[in-house]
Amino acid sequence: MQNNVEALVQRYLATFNETDAVRRKALIEAVYAASARYTDPHADLEGPAAIDAFVGAIQARYPGVLFSLAGKVDTHHTQARFTWHAAPKGASEPVAIGFDVIALEGERIGRVFGFLDKSPG
Amino acid sequence: MQNNVEALVQRYLATFNETDAVRRKALIEAVYAASARYTDPHADLEGPAAIDAFVGAIQARYPGVLFSLAGKVDTHHTQARFTWHAAPKGASEPVAIGFDVIALEGERIGRVFGFLDKSPG
Repeated sequence: MQNNVEALVQRYLATFNETDAVRRKALIEAVYAASARYTDPHADLEGPAAIDAFVGAIQARYPGVLFSLAGKVDTHHTQARFTWHAAPKGASEPVAIGFDVIALEGERIGRVFGFLDKSPG
Repeated sequence: MQNNVEALVQRYLATFNETDAVRRKALIEAVYAASARYTDPHADLEGPAAIDAFVGAIQARYPGVLFSLAGKVDTHHTQARFTWHAAPKGASEPVAIGFDVIALEGERIGRVFGFLDKSPG
């Protein structure tokens, strides 16, 4: 299960990096359950379409910034926690650092509880 | 809201310290929604009665160990994250360190997503 959840987290982070609108939508629909809810300090969203629009807005606001896993994914039962970094390609310092807990719904993400440890400017 | 959630977190931690069975049950019913689910690495429980039995078992296994908030409660929308310590009264080192995300249901806890940063021996 650890491997499956880690792969899911990597695909979740990849949705933020996929700037092709068609591929991003497909990836988001594969990663999130139809009833998924995503909540971070700036957004509280229901469903893959709303999440897709939000990710598109993030990409437009922070062009070239890439999201990556920082450290390990800690998972048990149907939940996981992990830290992520967002940084321009090649940059040594992340512009944002976040921490998420995800709750699974089957093999997809049912809930994202997002928090920020470092906000961009 | 910050103050309300912080107070709720303090009451949540207080359930682990309340060893009077009648008072503990009442506190747990006040803190958790009827449909609450509590999941940590060792338990996945539904409803206040199951959670009450679990907390009672923890108290029997680790007598005299007290739970307390470590650091700040970070809350937004209907979620919060925080770290807790569990230590014998007067001890300088916690025997266990945990990290929880809670999701609110109205003014009570609907979900606990618990993780451990230090396990007791």
